[in-house]
Amino acid sequence: MQHLSIQTIQSWERFYRANFVNCLSGFKAANLIGTVNAEGQPNLAIFSSVIHLGSDPALIGYINRPLAAAPHTIENIKATGVYTINHVSSTIVAKAHQTSAKYDQEINEFEAVGLATKFIHPIQAPFVEESEIKYALKLVEIVHITHNNTFLVIGEITDVFINESVVLEDGFIDLEKADSISCLGLDAYFTTNRIARYGYAKPDMPVKEL
Amino acid sequence: MQHLSIQTIQSWERFYRANFVNCLSGFKAANLIGTVNAEGQPNLAIFSSVIHLGSDPALIGYINRPLAAAPHTIENIKATGVYTINHVSSTIVAKAHQTSAKYDQEINEFEAVGLATKFIHPIQAPFVEESEIKYALKLVEIVHITHNNTFLVIGEITDVFINESVVLEDGFIDLEKADSISCLGLDAYFTTNRIARYGYAKPDMPVKEL
Repeated sequence: MQHLSIQTIQSWERFYRANFVNCLSGFKAANLIGTVNAEGQPNLAIFSSVIHLGSDPALIGYINRPLAAAPHTIENIKATGVYTINHVSSTIVAKAHQTSAKYDQEINEFEAVGLATKFIHPIQAPFVEESEIKYALKLVEIVHITHNNTFLVIGEITDVFINESVVLEDGFIDLEKADSISCLGLDAYFTTNRIARYGYAKPDMPVKEL
Repeated sequence: MQHLSIQTIQSWERFYRANFVNCLSGFKAANLIGTVNAEGQPNLAIFSSVIHLGSDPALIGYINRPLAAAPHTIENIKATGVYTINHVSSTIVAKAHQTSAKYDQEINEFEAVGLATKFIHPIQAPFVEESEIKYALKLVEIVHITHNNTFLVIGEITDVFINESVVLEDGFIDLEKADSISCLGLDAYFTTNRIARYGYAKPDMPVKEL
């Protein structure tokens, strides 16, 4: 096993370093965030940083890169207070990846990449028609992470749209049945195969497969 | 497609709701965080909330639940300023899950679940011997998320331990070759199958598979 010091990692060419460090945190969720600006112009962008913060209240976070690199999604959320999170499925993965291109503010990424916009009254932000699992959020707080000028955007779920057939009897969502995929690093996408579900762990009790 | 309002979700039994909301954010990374307290007592716990914050500086975050529910890892990090993140591989998944049991502070989870402790001088926090990819971090900041009393713990990578054979020529880490796995919700674990890697996206350029 090789030891890499942070001095070594810092000395690397920036794209090599970005690929490496992005993979260290492990597999991630692939989600499309839909917004509109104050004039109603839709925006859609892929994020691999959506994270569960809590179930009650139902809070979801995502990391927005510095404003100079990625202004549109966060500015739209600030302007309207509303956004949607839409699961990426294997059938739309290439289109979802293409939303990461730096389109100008006046470009509608839904149209640019070929995904269908779905507005669900009275929610102001657009959903991705093709996504099997999608939900709307209202902005709760934007936390500025000063060390690298990124932002933790915190939202509370207001409405979920899902096919009941993928929800198991204990509330677990069968994301494989819903065709939701995983991602890694800057550019890799994966289907999954379940190893197991395990019961709630207790000290002095052996692990029990569900 | 069914519409579930937040009022409906809030009305559910708490474990059903927790399973459901935990799955909504999508697939996650499975990681073990190793710490010691001020007396050198090791602690090991599984976290599904490790997240990439940036590559330069190399910042990694994780969400720590409220102190009353999960005090040991965050208190040890506060006390020592140092911790390790260790990938969960398919060969240790059941043991890794078992670290989520509420062991008393004086119990060493490495011993309780049967994982080997590895100290690498001069890093104060313990690594998981069995993990193919592991790294040490120094604490940078703990952000209190007031809305649900959780914490975003931010660390900077100081040292990475990895087998060179899983690092591709552009810095991407082949986590499938390293046997790192993905997880979902509170209790499900997955191997993965790569769909594709796509090139850096640009407007007016078709998506290109790498």
